[in-house]
Amino acid sequence: MTTEDGSTDGVTGAEADGVDEYADLGATTESAMEIAETSMDRVRELVPDETLADRIRQKSVHATGDPEFQHLVRFTGDTEDEPVVAGARAVLDERPIVTDITMVKAGITGRGHDCPVRKAIGNGSELAKRTGMTRTAASVLELDREGVYDDAVAVVGNAPTAALALADCIEDGTRPAVVVATPVGFVKAAESRERLREVAAARGVPAVTNVGRRGGSGLAAGLTNELVHVASDVRSGEVELP
Amino acid sequence: MTTEDGSTDGVTGAEADGVDEYADLGATTESAMEIAETSMDRVRELVPDETLADRIRQKSVHATGDPEFQHLVRFTGDTEDEPVVAGARAVLDERPIVTDITMVKAGITGRGHDCPVRKAIGNGSELAKRTGMTRTAASVLELDREGVYDDAVAVVGNAPTAALALADCIEDGTRPAVVVATPVGFVKAAESRERLREVAAARGVPAVTNVGRRGGSGLAAGLTNELVHVASDVRSGEVELP
Repeated sequence: MTTEDGSTDGVTGAEADGVDEYADLGATTESAMEIAETSMDRVRELVPDETLADRIRQKSVHATGDPEFQHLVRFTGDTEDEPVVAGARAVLDERPIVTDITMVKAGITGRGHDCPVRKAIGNGSELAKRTGMTRTAASVLELDREGVYDDAVAVVGNAPTAALALADCIEDGTRPAVVVATPVGFVKAAESRERLREVAAARGVPAVTNVGRRGGSGLAAGLTNELVHVASDVRSGEVELP
Repeated sequence: MTTEDGSTDGVTGAEADGVDEYADLGATTESAMEIAETSMDRVRELVPDETLADRIRQKSVHATGDPEFQHLVRFTGDTEDEPVVAGARAVLDERPIVTDITMVKAGITGRGHDCPVRKAIGNGSELAKRTGMTRTAASVLELDREGVYDDAVAVVGNAPTAALALADCIEDGTRPAVVVATPVGFVKAAESRERLREVAAARGVPAVTNVGRRGGSGLAAGLTNELVHVASDVRSGEVELP
């Protein structure tokens, strides 16, 4: 798969945090397959395995290496499964996956989907200069002006200000297919996710987020890849969407 | 800065986990600067600020959003500061920074250094096919054959098998300037770092690692960026290396 920045690294998907050991998407050699199965087997001993939302919980544990993280994930929608269903549908519909920063984009799998993968950062530098807002926030607003976020898989892994900007866009009428937001840190990270959850709930936008200060690019990429994985299972008939 | 894969994204450094809010390297707008100072101020309230090793501890907390992570970092060397000093010197000497996967490479700052930044993944696919070892492990062995790891900043953020392969290389005589290894997960991640620490100690290779299952690409990139940051402070006279 060729990504928009010209990289032809078809193995990107195998490189996201934890995904290197992920049997169905990334592991292409015998040894990696073995690790993959053991790793997900261990996660399944620690996290329920009943619903689509559980798969996101499992992935959060897989990506962070921390069994406790399953309790920090939040699902915004009429049901817990709704954001997972919406995400899988968006992947099947080949909607764009739009990340905040390059690092998250680099973690999105190249396999199992034909979605264009874009990053926000790099856009809106004029706006940032003029207004003094962060470059990531400006980049989200700039892409939003171009209509990029409507029906897209909107992913924020790093920047609280990007999450806040995305919340503003949703409040102003933008409708992503699903939001995956796990910015990390001590300033505004938890608050930005809380605001995203409020706005998303009010506007009917499904979202996967977490509570607390933890999070990050690896987690955001991992959760997004799990949406791709669910879509693959739909395609192969293993999973049926409601 | 132009990276080896042709990307000209000079703002990469501002994109690593947590680095978007990092005043001296990444924050270029007023709003980002404010967040940056508050964020690192909060971290400094939670983590000692006396030694060079403390800066790595601070960064680990900053990157993970978890004050407890400071206790999980391990320093291999005659002193705790040694790997930080060795890393800063390697950066000042413009030695290569070699990451395991694309995602970690994407998180390495483009500012404050003139080191070539390379990734291992993408090399050694023949070896992986032939032997059944993971692609990341094969890629490390392949680069090692080319002598890439000698005197380099060797970074492993994702793949336990890459960390194990790097340990094998060190055992066989390779001498990185410093190792930064924080692979994450339930299978072999903690063990791979333990083995790296043993081999690095035995062979006199300074290393920054962590204990436990947690870790990941964002952390590895963040800690490596802190080495770059220390090097910048040496250049500006704020820090003197022993």
